[in-house]
Formats: sequence, C-alpha cells, structure tokens
Amino acid sequence: MMLPSISPVDAAVVARVQQELDNKTKPLGSLGRLETLTSRYAAILGRDKLSAPKKAVVVMAADHGVAAAGVSAFPQSVTEQMLRNFAAGGAAINALAKSAGASLTVVNLGTLGETPQGVVNARIRQSSNNLLEMEALTEADVWAALEVGVKLAAELRAQGVTLLGVGEMGIANTTVAACLCAAFCRTDGTAWVGRGTGIDDAALARKHAVVEAALARHQPNPKNPIRVLCQLGGLEVIGLAGLMLGAASQRMAIIVDGFITSAAALAAAALDETVKHYLFASHLSTEPGHRLALNQLGLEPVLDLQLRLGEATGAALAMPLFDAGVAMLLEMATFESANVARRSETV
Amino acid sequence: MMLPSISPVDAAVVARVQQELDNKTKPLGSLGRLETLTSRYAAILGRDKLSAPKKAVVVMAADHGVAAAGVSAFPQSVTEQMLRNFAAGGAAINALAKSAGASLTVVNLGTLGETPQGVVNARIRQSSNNLLEMEALTEADVWAALEVGVKLAAELRAQGVTLLGVGEMGIANTTVAACLCAAFCRTDGTAWVGRGTGIDDAALARKHAVVEAALARHQPNPKNPIRVLCQLGGLEVIGLAGLMLGAASQRMAIIVDGFITSAAALAAAALDETVKHYLFASHLSTEPGHRLALNQLGLEPVLDLQLRLGEATGAALAMPLFDAGVAMLLEMATFESANVARRSETV
Repeated sequence: MMLPSISPVDAAVVARVQQELDNKTKPLGSLGRLETLTSRYAAILGRDKLSAPKKAVVVMAADHGVAAAGVSAFPQSVTEQMLRNFAAGGAAINALAKSAGASLTVVNLGTLGETPQGVVNARIRQSSNNLLEMEALTEADVWAALEVGVKLAAELRAQGVTLLGVGEMGIANTTVAACLCAAFCRTDGTAWVGRGTGIDDAALARKHAVVEAALARHQPNPKNPIRVLCQLGGLEVIGLAGLMLGAASQRMAIIVDGFITSAAALAAAALDETVKHYLFASHLSTEPGHRLALNQLGLEPVLDLQLRLGEATGAALAMPLFDAGVAMLLEMATFESANVARRSETV
Repeated sequence: MMLPSISPVDAAVVARVQQELDNKTKPLGSLGRLETLTSRYAAILGRDKLSAPKKAVVVMAADHGVAAAGVSAFPQSVTEQMLRNFAAGGAAINALAKSAGASLTVVNLGTLGETPQGVVNARIRQSSNNLLEMEALTEADVWAALEVGVKLAAELRAQGVTLLGVGEMGIANTTVAACLCAAFCRTDGTAWVGRGTGIDDAALARKHAVVEAALARHQPNPKNPIRVLCQLGGLEVIGLAGLMLGAASQRMAIIVDGFITSAAALAAAALDETVKHYLFASHLSTEPGHRLALNQLGLEPVLDLQLRLGEATGAALAMPLFDAGVAMLLEMATFESANVARRSETV
C-alpha cells in the first residue's frame, strides 16, 4: 500500500470565509473559536458545497502485550467485554454518538478475544507483543493496520460523511500512546505518563518505569515513523493514524478525541504532516500528556469537561459545535442586509 | 409582587444519580463535568421524569443611559437594530438556538426605539437613566422588570420547557454589569471592566473611570439588592434576574451565558441564594470579569470557545451537552447488565 496523498487546505479560502463571518451581525471575532473552527471546516468541505455536517464516529480497538506489565486499572479482558458492550449499544459512545446524530462504526484491529457481531472484524493478529521484550509489531502488521484505516475513510466518504470523530478502546493503550508521543516529540517519557483509567500510585510508578524501559530498549527514531510503529505499536492507534490520513486525503474534517487519538494524530503527522490541516481538537483531557500533544499538533480544545474516557466520547460531544458553526455561516445576516450599524467611528 | 419561593435541589438525589452513573460501563468519573451536570439536571427535573430536555432561549434587551459616557464600541441605535435583526431571524442567536433545537423568545424591557413585531413588548420605560447623574431606575421599574422575568418563566414552564438559556442585548450593558458585580461582590470596579464588544484603550480608560465614579456616587449596599438595582440598573439585567428566580421556582435548569447574564445571576442570588442550585455555566468569556463572577456563583464552564458576544450564544452552544448527558444516563449499560469487569482488585 502507498499512503494516500493529502492536499493542503487553502489558506486563502479559510481567510475568505473568515471575511464572510466578519460581515455578520456581531462584533468582530466575537464568536471566537466557533469562527475559526467554521472557517477551516468550510474551507475543507468547499464553501459552495457547505451544508449541515454528515457525521460518523469510528472507534478502533486492540489489545496490547504490555498489559502484562500491570499498567492498567482494568484487566485485559475488558477490551473484549467492551467490544460486546459497543455491539449491544450500552457504552458511553453509543449514547453520545446517537445524541450527536452520528453513525458509529467499531473496528477490531487486534483483540485477544473474538469479534462480536456488529463490530467490524479487521483483526490483523491477537494483540501486539509486549514492547518491553521485543518489537510490538511486524512491518506487515503496521501496513495492514494503516490500510484498514485508509480503506474505511474512503468507505465513509462514499457514504457522504464530512465530519469524522475518532476514538479507541484497548486496555494499556495509554502506555503505548505515552511511548509514541515521547518518540515522535523527541522527549523522555515523564511528561506523557498519567493515570489513564485511574491507576493507583504503585501502578503509576510501574507505568513510568515501563515507558522509560521501552524507550531505552528501542531507541525509536522519529525520522522513520513506520519503524517506530513496529517497535511500539499498537494496532488500534496505527489504524486510527491510517484513518486520519485517509480521511484527510478524502477532505473530511477529523475530530481528535483524547490522549490516545492525539498520539495517533502525531503518528499520522509523522507520516504526512499535511494531515494537521484536517484535524480539530475536541476536549482537554485530564491525562497530562493530552495538552502537550494538542500543542504539538497546533490544536485548541473547545470543550472543558475534564473527560478521561476515550471511545471518541469527547469527539462526539464536540460535533454539535460544527452544526452550530455551519448554521452561523449559512443563516446569519450581514450588517448590510440587516441594516445594523458597524462599530462607531467616533467612540 | 412577591419574589417566588425556590426549593433547594436535594443533594441526596444528586448523589443517587451520581451513584447510578458510577455503575455505568466507564471508569469512575471519567465523563467529568458531563456527569456532574447530568446528576444535578436529573435532580432538578426529577430522576423518574427525566427525558430529553425541552429547550428555550430567552434574550432580554434594553438601553442604558450610561451609553452617553462613550463606553461602547457601537452606537446606541444598535440595540434597536439588533432587535429587528432578532425578529427577522438574522442574528447569531437565531442560528444557534435553532441549531440547538431551542425556541427563542426576545423580550424588550426598555429600549429607546419601538418594539418590532416578533419581539415581546414588555417595555417598562425608554432606557434607564445615566447612573453617573442619578439613580438608573425607580423602585417601581425594578419590580416591574423582575415581574416580567418571573411571569415569562411560568409561561415557559407551562409549555414544558425544562432547560432555559438566558442572554441579553443592550449597548453599554457591560458597564452596568461591571458596576453590579462590584456591588454584589463588595469589590472596587477594576477587575470587572473589560473591552466588551471591543473598545479601544481610550474607551477602556473611560469605562474604568465611569464604573468607579458610579460606585463612588451610589455607594451600593449589597444587603439591599433592590436598592442596588435602582441605583445601577439595567432593565434587561433585572428582567433576567427575575427570569432566573422564576425558572428556579419552577424547577427549570438555567444556563448562564457570558458576563452580563452572570451579573444578572449575582443579582438573583442576592435576592435569593437558592437560585444557585439551578444555575449552570456554559462558556468562559474573554471578558475578564466573567471568570470572577462564575467563581462567585460556584459554576464551572464547559465550553472553551473564547466567546464575547452575549445574546445567549454560549448558553445555546452548551445545550447539546444536556441532551448528551441525559442520553448517557438513560441509555448506558451497567457493569452488571453488560457483563463488563470492574477495575482489577489485584493491579
């Protein structure tokens, strides 16, 4: 597979839409990030084709060999149990995607357990290897996971989707994400390690040690992102990177969720930096690495909800802001059409 | 008129709903402020009666004598022009209320100009007095404005509204709001003065001087809130305080918008502190006094959009979070029902 090619978003179009917003009946720039979000979304979709977003949420899942190191508050069996919960409609993202008017696709990239009905079976292998002992994945695994994402993006675009929220499920994947962030941002692991689903102090200390040991063992080189992904994994994170690259090549807007999807975005950006033009932040997680990753991606969160769940829940919660932004652009009157005075010249 | 009586929200019910959320298939507390927002909303409405919120947005408008002091970036005629814009459907709040699925009621409490068709005419007088020269309103004006709000709340509740977003329009009303905040929080004016719709440095200096002069002239006593409202005004702010008191007495959840509605909330709380049980924050404005006012009210914003428009735009943008929260509570599976393991005992 070749990585899909991504066209940059035209800054001149973004500026033209912002100019259009500047003529609407409101003080200049007074709708803040709703304006910048909308002007970029409109430039991605094409101003003339703009209508209410068609929304989809994708959650990718896999297991991780490093779970054996005791870095999660939950047993590894929860990955499979949650796949069944997604399939049955009982997880948070089921409720929140439905509330946002988004379709939900759950994809199994590599769990230990079987794929329940209602989940897309794209299992490449049963879990990654424990990155403390060997490379997490083969190069073939990495390319296969990227391909799952790229293909799914094309399918969603063919269905008319314009706004894509991305999320993940995989016990121990904050540990993998911390390693990836450190690798792609050329730092040590310290700043990227947090409590994930809620580990205690002892597990947190283990997690710090695991991340440092993994980085020391593999010496990941960010100039060779495919090698980094082999060394560190994991399958759902790589699938999401492929999904983002594919979605950007299809000119879809992509809403990043929490820390792990931000790590996937960093991986995607290491493969093709132009993907950043298509990324939007949703919330600011309590996971400490999330803010650092968003900064690195040049993204500003729009929700302040203290979330730390994943599953694309933050991305789904941000979707109505795109509905609102499009409504603002398409429905608001201009100063001229409404006969409203602009700011005083004399005051 | 007597002020309506407000029942406290039962903390035991809030705790019971939170317990219910703690049994849902997600790490404990991992949906952050969406959980606290939902448990309080459910306790206000009654857990057994909970369903998707029925939403309404109310924007109250008036003019302010202090506009003569040159404290706004816009000419005073804009208040009336914007009323016409609301009536014609061209303002930001028209687009955003519609996008949120909320009805929109615009009420004229006291503009200089006439009330356009489509706006509720509850004009008590033409503008307040200039608070630099005399008291802004009479005691009869204040009670009349409160009554407009209280009555509207009862009408909305009779229509089945459960979630109310509040907003305002009135050139120069950030100056009035700054005076009110200083009065009710027993501070000087400094921290409460900002650029409003976007004034330059010279106007900002004037605005600081105006607020200090008003406070020095009237020496407002927060123990007598009705007197403070006479001294400082303004009609739409007082109407909103009445609306909040009425809505709380009718057990509706109230979403505060930006700085001016927060000042109205402080006025309402000075009249009956129990109103705070029913208030929710939406966004954090760039107006510096907004954070201080929210702190005083004990509210945490859920949106981070750098808004500074008013008109209830932030309140409308926050409404889908209530839909999402109710969906989370009503639709998510429990650990038991989904057969998902709780956190490991051993890790």
